[in-house]
Amino acid sequence: MNVGILGGGQLAQMMAQAGAKLDMSFMFLCPDPQACAAPFGQHLCAPFEDEEAKRQLAEWADVATYEFENIPAEHVASLEQQIDLHPSSQALAVARDRLKEKRCFRALGIPTAEFMPVDTLDDLKEAIAVVGLPAILKTRTMGYDGKGQAVLRRPEDLPDAWTQVGEVPCIVESMVEFTRELSIIATRSRTGELAFYPLSENHHREGILRLSLSRQGHPQQSTAQSLIQRLLNELDYVGVLALELFQVGDEFYANEMAPRVHNTGHWTIEGACTSQFENHLRAISGMPLGATDAPVQAAMVNLIGLLQDETTIREFPGATPHFYGKTERPGRKVGHINLVDNGDGLEAFNERLAGLLQLAGENALAELLEPAK
Amino acid sequence: MNVGILGGGQLAQMMAQAGAKLDMSFMFLCPDPQACAAPFGQHLCAPFEDEEAKRQLAEWADVATYEFENIPAEHVASLEQQIDLHPSSQALAVARDRLKEKRCFRALGIPTAEFMPVDTLDDLKEAIAVVGLPAILKTRTMGYDGKGQAVLRRPEDLPDAWTQVGEVPCIVESMVEFTRELSIIATRSRTGELAFYPLSENHHREGILRLSLSRQGHPQQSTAQSLIQRLLNELDYVGVLALELFQVGDEFYANEMAPRVHNTGHWTIEGACTSQFENHLRAISGMPLGATDAPVQAAMVNLIGLLQDETTIREFPGATPHFYGKTERPGRKVGHINLVDNGDGLEAFNERLAGLLQLAGENALAELLEPAK
Repeated sequence: MNVGILGGGQLAQMMAQAGAKLDMSFMFLCPDPQACAAPFGQHLCAPFEDEEAKRQLAEWADVATYEFENIPAEHVASLEQQIDLHPSSQALAVARDRLKEKRCFRALGIPTAEFMPVDTLDDLKEAIAVVGLPAILKTRTMGYDGKGQAVLRRPEDLPDAWTQVGEVPCIVESMVEFTRELSIIATRSRTGELAFYPLSENHHREGILRLSLSRQGHPQQSTAQSLIQRLLNELDYVGVLALELFQVGDEFYANEMAPRVHNTGHWTIEGACTSQFENHLRAISGMPLGATDAPVQAAMVNLIGLLQDETTIREFPGATPHFYGKTERPGRKVGHINLVDNGDGLEAFNERLAGLLQLAGENALAELLEPAK
Repeated sequence: MNVGILGGGQLAQMMAQAGAKLDMSFMFLCPDPQACAAPFGQHLCAPFEDEEAKRQLAEWADVATYEFENIPAEHVASLEQQIDLHPSSQALAVARDRLKEKRCFRALGIPTAEFMPVDTLDDLKEAIAVVGLPAILKTRTMGYDGKGQAVLRRPEDLPDAWTQVGEVPCIVESMVEFTRELSIIATRSRTGELAFYPLSENHHREGILRLSLSRQGHPQQSTAQSLIQRLLNELDYVGVLALELFQVGDEFYANEMAPRVHNTGHWTIEGACTSQFENHLRAISGMPLGATDAPVQAAMVNLIGLLQDETTIREFPGATPHFYGKTERPGRKVGHINLVDNGDGLEAFNERLAGLLQLAGENALAELLEPAK
């Protein structure tokens, strides 16, 4: 089966790696000449709005998907008219716009922070009167890794924040004092079959994900599943969907969703029976979904900016390196390391995880990390 | 990491598919110009005794392995002098010779059928006096899929059988009246780490494997593990080893071992957290082993001689097709289909398995199959 992907970064690369055993071939439409997925398939080096390139992709591929949501939905829709494409441009249109997304959450009874749309500085002032301070101003589209966001603590922060986000359509949200950041990743197939991964617990620094831990047996697993299930069914969704959640006591507030494979699910490559990448391919290509069981504790440490010595990591007990073949650059995701409990027990796992975090330059996280529960 | 493989058939192909996500590249030394693994790496089309080709493989690769045991150990040994190679030529020398293999079993206290070496027709007559009838005459080397074997039921069968096997060095074994054929597949890493898969139950027809079923929770799992563990440690083995067992009541008799990934372990691709192919690569390349847990019932149906319609199988609930890209030929393994319990329960699984077996032309097996326990 031939799979066309809009995008050619590490998510596309890991899909192609997962697709090898399913006898799938890949073509990437990606404007970056250095697209790191390119060695794993054919690379159409063109912008996403290039209709001729999309025609070529549609002609070659049996099914198409995308690896990130910062593509205007109309560029995806024009491809969708030519080929089976999942998740649909309609799902994308909701997921890529923070206002539509939050309204969708609300309509489905999924709890969120207070939020208000903001199109002008005056809107912002009025909105703050409703949502209170502290709050976060976020661009409706194109945000990732903390970009396009500004924190509002005092009324005098508003004008600078409005300038900082570029005076584009935004939403402002009350800041949730959360106990923990979690995410749930699920897959829905063409026939409506559903599969849920165990919750991930996520740790960010400077707006960038640094660490995810699998949280098998979390007491609110079924609550999280029920929330994402509403979205999957409402959007008639096909593929992998990620939903970021703030845990406050025993409750969840939905932060955002991503209509694609997600960084907080990278641990599933070694930590679950079927990775999120394989299940995304299974879903979009009409195959039965694979088991999402995760029998042992797993974690993922992102490599940001700098790669580490491959041999050291290869020999690190329980660790599997995933290097994306990208050049090192500050703040760039150049790889990740997955760690699984290799039977030594949780204490030894946490010690090894602390060692890996130090290796990745995350000393503060290594020290602060609570023992996995 | 660059991996060199002696052989370029479906086992090499499935290793390469599993190695994609571990960032491994592959080179296959294989005399067959149609080697089905070739699209997944570089193909050195040369005989195994070609020293120049082996030099080239050793220069390119970081580690080497082989996909079948019918290579004279000395051809493997000459490569082993140039590169890390696993399993060792010493392990291969034992595993490829039925006499050395059975003597090794006996030395380690692993039960086997009665056996005697046979170098002449007179030897055979004398041996039968010891092992009794019925018995099986097998060539010491080069046998597979029932080739190089003759069944002895009456004393007058001996001369024809001796002619049939080619009058080469053999062993003769008393025939075991077994309840069930099983196999255990295990991996040992460079550091001595061990991982065992659940037992497989295997069904043959015309000497060729047709069906394997995972047997999680088999009451003799730990017995089987202890038998193969003795072999792994005795041979200082690195990689995947398969041990075929006859179950007689509550006891096991070892039939033979294969120093490689094994057809009876193909269900692990979708049925276990880490496939035998991935674990073989992890073991030989010095990586930690992956989890061998198999959370749900799985089965594998071989496609012998004829491929089936890919779309039908892709849409078959719980099934994943693996086609090797080989041309159809009677008796040839051209692919296999893995089936997993997709949550419908065991009865539905068995119904679907019967359907797949009919699809694969195994009607008798579909009818006779006992419900999975």
